[in-house]
Amino acid sequence: MIRLKQVHILSLLFVIFAFAKAISQQSSIDRIEPPFWWADMEHAEVEVMFYGQNIGKAEVKSDLPILKIRRTENLNYLFVTFDTTNQNHGEYAITMNVGDTYFTSKYELKQRSLNSKHRKGFDSSDAIYLLMPDRFANGNPENDSHPETTEKLNRSFKGGRHGGDIQGIIDHLDYISDLGATAIWSTPLLEDNDKQYSYHTYAQSDLYKIDPRYGTNEDYKRLASELHKRDMKLIMDYVTNHWGATHWMMQDLPTATWIHQFDDNDGKEFPVPGYANSSYRQTTQMDPNKSQIDDTYAEKGWFVSTMPDINQSEPLALNYLIQNAIWWIEYAGLDGFRVDTYSYNEKEGIADWTKAIMKEYPYFNIVGETWMHDQSQIAFWQKDSPIGAIQSYNSGLPSVMDFTLHDAIMKAFKENDQQWDKGMVRIYENFVNDFLYADVNNILLFAGNHDTNRINGDGLYDGDVNNYKLALTLVLTARGIPQIYYGDEIGMGGNRDTSGDGDIRRDFPGGWQDDEVNAFKKRTKFQKPFYEFTKKLLNYRKGKPVLHDGKFLHYVPENNCYVYFRYSDSSRVMVVINNNPEKVTLNLDRFKEGLQDVNEGLDILSGKKIDLGNTLSVTGKTSMVIDLDKPEKGPRFF
Amino acid sequence: MIRLKQVHILSLLFVIFAFAKAISQQSSIDRIEPPFWWADMEHAEVEVMFYGQNIGKAEVKSDLPILKIRRTENLNYLFVTFDTTNQNHGEYAITMNVGDTYFTSKYELKQRSLNSKHRKGFDSSDAIYLLMPDRFANGNPENDSHPETTEKLNRSFKGGRHGGDIQGIIDHLDYISDLGATAIWSTPLLEDNDKQYSYHTYAQSDLYKIDPRYGTNEDYKRLASELHKRDMKLIMDYVTNHWGATHWMMQDLPTATWIHQFDDNDGKEFPVPGYANSSYRQTTQMDPNKSQIDDTYAEKGWFVSTMPDINQSEPLALNYLIQNAIWWIEYAGLDGFRVDTYSYNEKEGIADWTKAIMKEYPYFNIVGETWMHDQSQIAFWQKDSPIGAIQSYNSGLPSVMDFTLHDAIMKAFKENDQQWDKGMVRIYENFVNDFLYADVNNILLFAGNHDTNRINGDGLYDGDVNNYKLALTLVLTARGIPQIYYGDEIGMGGNRDTSGDGDIRRDFPGGWQDDEVNAFKKRTKFQKPFYEFTKKLLNYRKGKPVLHDGKFLHYVPENNCYVYFRYSDSSRVMVVINNNPEKVTLNLDRFKEGLQDVNEGLDILSGKKIDLGNTLSVTGKTSMVIDLDKPEKGPRFF
Repeated sequence: MIRLKQVHILSLLFVIFAFAKAISQQSSIDRIEPPFWWADMEHAEVEVMFYGQNIGKAEVKSDLPILKIRRTENLNYLFVTFDTTNQNHGEYAITMNVGDTYFTSKYELKQRSLNSKHRKGFDSSDAIYLLMPDRFANGNPENDSHPETTEKLNRSFKGGRHGGDIQGIIDHLDYISDLGATAIWSTPLLEDNDKQYSYHTYAQSDLYKIDPRYGTNEDYKRLASELHKRDMKLIMDYVTNHWGATHWMMQDLPTATWIHQFDDNDGKEFPVPGYANSSYRQTTQMDPNKSQIDDTYAEKGWFVSTMPDINQSEPLALNYLIQNAIWWIEYAGLDGFRVDTYSYNEKEGIADWTKAIMKEYPYFNIVGETWMHDQSQIAFWQKDSPIGAIQSYNSGLPSVMDFTLHDAIMKAFKENDQQWDKGMVRIYENFVNDFLYADVNNILLFAGNHDTNRINGDGLYDGDVNNYKLALTLVLTARGIPQIYYGDEIGMGGNRDTSGDGDIRRDFPGGWQDDEVNAFKKRTKFQKPFYEFTKKLLNYRKGKPVLHDGKFLHYVPENNCYVYFRYSDSSRVMVVINNNPEKVTLNLDRFKEGLQDVNEGLDILSGKKIDLGNTLSVTGKTSMVIDLDKPEKGPRFF
Repeated sequence: MIRLKQVHILSLLFVIFAFAKAISQQSSIDRIEPPFWWADMEHAEVEVMFYGQNIGKAEVKSDLPILKIRRTENLNYLFVTFDTTNQNHGEYAITMNVGDTYFTSKYELKQRSLNSKHRKGFDSSDAIYLLMPDRFANGNPENDSHPETTEKLNRSFKGGRHGGDIQGIIDHLDYISDLGATAIWSTPLLEDNDKQYSYHTYAQSDLYKIDPRYGTNEDYKRLASELHKRDMKLIMDYVTNHWGATHWMMQDLPTATWIHQFDDNDGKEFPVPGYANSSYRQTTQMDPNKSQIDDTYAEKGWFVSTMPDINQSEPLALNYLIQNAIWWIEYAGLDGFRVDTYSYNEKEGIADWTKAIMKEYPYFNIVGETWMHDQSQIAFWQKDSPIGAIQSYNSGLPSVMDFTLHDAIMKAFKENDQQWDKGMVRIYENFVNDFLYADVNNILLFAGNHDTNRINGDGLYDGDVNNYKLALTLVLTARGIPQIYYGDEIGMGGNRDTSGDGDIRRDFPGGWQDDEVNAFKKRTKFQKPFYEFTKKLLNYRKGKPVLHDGKFLHYVPENNCYVYFRYSDSSRVMVVINNNPEKVTLNLDRFKEGLQDVNEGLDILSGKKIDLGNTLSVTGKTSMVIDLDKPEKGPRFF
């Protein structure tokens, strides 16, 4: 166990409601977290963390009823649980004294916004646009570097900070909305004061503060508000598993158990004491044959040496994460979380975290990163999972990610021969196992994200627009919640395997004032077909509820051509994805169950009326999305 | 729907208890199935099928109480259900008349052998030797060809009949027992009167008769008895899904619904009316998104054109199969079934079949061929499966086959680099998902069978004895029931992909009188190391209960070396499989949980005492099976 270091905190970064100045040099209050709370919360017993020299020795009195006071082995922390049940919003006096030294202050309970509890999270009616804020658009060049944070602007370095920010996102919401996406998932925006590679922002140093190079907390709130004006949603990328080695608390941990610490670094020297790396073998979470040591290194090992692993079995730490998460939802007006490395967390702890949030906001949505390569292992993590139930586990997590579909997408469109288990059969087989999932409509579908090779990158589909169209047709019309990755819509390339993370996180052209091409406004000849297709299909999907939550009916692919239907009692769409380089002619007798008595439709991709009487010819490497509804039902596409 | 053909049956092949000869030419009784039954059966209501011209018109009287008489659209059949409850064994008179024509006969209820009901089936204490009777040994050259069956001896043709038979198996039971196997699974022995490729015997023409080229029903009974004398078990390869196009009933079906028949052969011409081929997409059995037409072709389509697909939804057909299966268990004294193409059967019907047998013999065992490539899909088929339960399905099938382990074995030992998801990690990942199975000890483990490439074949491991040893160590020491395939123990080759089925079903050298090499008695220099290793490990396993049903504890492979333990409160074995071509040195600290306080053991493969104090060096491409028990516990290997 490493020794807690009793060093002075470097600077008082963030105290929204400052206490009275310490009368004595021996005691101080430097931080209060959460800085405020709200009246009428489900989570009414708020555990406020006070941080400052010797504050752990303090006596506390308050107008807010105090339920519990917890002191840890580190006297610089004090955890005071207030009972806000039936308390009005307003400011409440708090008095503390350490011997003769008195502090007085106020703790505010704010008024909740209308209908906050019943906010509806993102769901399968949405299409999510995933972006990395440092790489999307630089709306405010003045915050590209900031005195409070170490790493400065260096746009010429792929792994450096490029200057994108919240204002840049806000400036292009009309672009995203026009494209047809209805929600934004931005990778993290909280402060990451790592000295390098901080642009990805997964090594956070302050959980209550937007990184100043992206903007302010108020800017983030404004982003949510601007999205809501456009009937769009904001999904925060939340990190429960770890934070950064530069997190202010790492200098002076409240308890030794706050993070997972190892005695023995396997003989290796690393910059951070207590560090041992994760084995990344998330399968230990469910493996009945696992050894304890493998379990320990997989789950408790650090993601990397700069990301200490938080211990969700430590109730103080877990509650800190719960309250922080609720705080951001309530403060900024969020519509969802994407939770980083969900399956690396302490299994029970992360379930408690998830359930606490869903209890507070019963219609919210949270999607966990469940990067497994087996459907039962992904399904395991979803709320009310029959697979989780085998091990008496229920995460409470509403939404998981379809990484096996992604695995299939990364191979299928290269496979042009008809084979038993290749090409479109890979895709088909992914949906065969839908019975393993508790809720198939709450699965995130994607052809790529900020951690994978780009769908249009070299080494994958080499910017071939036909393959992009096939993949996007699938992602936007299959069951679940589609997610696209910024830049895919203009054919942006990048190869992670050969050129690293930075290459799949290139700057969006036009996001910087001096960019030669501004793809937000005008696309090159290469970009245009990607953009037009994406926009057309996204906007069609937006207005077609049967693609959101209609039932799914599919057919075994023949000749590398996959056919499926989304249908309800009143609406019906036929999707044909012909991955065969040659034309395929379908005998429509086979598809009677899907077609019912419909004998013509409109292919919304080509805009052509389609005769569905006997056979259907589909050009090689082409998809069709055939609206089968009569004009009087559903949107008027005929 | 095809027309039932009112043709005369070619010959009266098999009537054990003949009825009185028909007085009139217009009516006859040619077959009675089952030919006899037993008193005191759980399945006491036996539905006896009478077959003969116009017998469907008969009135029936009997000393045995008649519960029900069923007549079908085909007047040549009559199904009479007798209630044998509380009836003594003995012969019972039956009288039938069609108009003025009277038949009188007797139906026998035999006495059950002692403890028949409570026979214990094969289990994880067994090691199964799979053989193909036509290719194992020719004990009786006089039955190589037989007047009753079409295909004659042609040993020079890979797909022809080679003359092996039941006597050949009996003659070599000592060899198999000495090798260390405790059970035999012979591929089918019932009559298959196909004009070609009948040697595989999966296209059966008479379900109550051993193929005369293998011997007689009595010979089969004798095989069981000879096995039991040696404390060994007999597993019958049972085919519920289909039978042969030459089955006698195919000429004159009892009901049109007895087999699955298609109106339309998709425009193709095939030798058999009503035929359409299976798509082999067994995943339709569990796919919630499937189309009905895909379901129909997968499940009801014929395996091949010479194997009509039996309809297990037809109660008469299902009961015929149930009674036939029970008949063979009771008649021959079987210890288990292996069920061919289990997952191709009608899902509910095959569950009823399975449960009826297990109700009759509660401690019996049945392993189904569940050739899927996904663990949840295999687990689906096992009795009390939590995966099956998701779809309210319970097959009742005690044992399934670990085809995903086989998939891994076919790749892992070629992969000599340490990679994230290759080499021994493939094997490890198979056991990670053990939580999906209802009973991990009742899963069949194998490195190959009569339908796969041979483990020692060219194209797979090219007769490399080191790879064979690694694979066999795994199969014989992991959880489950190991199965080896005849000839593997002498390094027999064969490549199905390039040279067809016949190539993986070569004759066992020494099984024929004129064979130059007799590997039953003396092995060549090439064969010897395969044989010695197999014999040593099989015999060790036989005497080591912890390898039968001990708990399983494994470690994430490092450096392509996989370590696991089998353990109980009183016994413990450590297995190390080093797939790395280089020596690997293990720091034993990591394995404390498995080793407990043991600091020395005996590697039963090398015969060497092993110091387990600090580190363990394992030669490249070598396995170790380290007995950790003190000499006074368990077998004396020290």
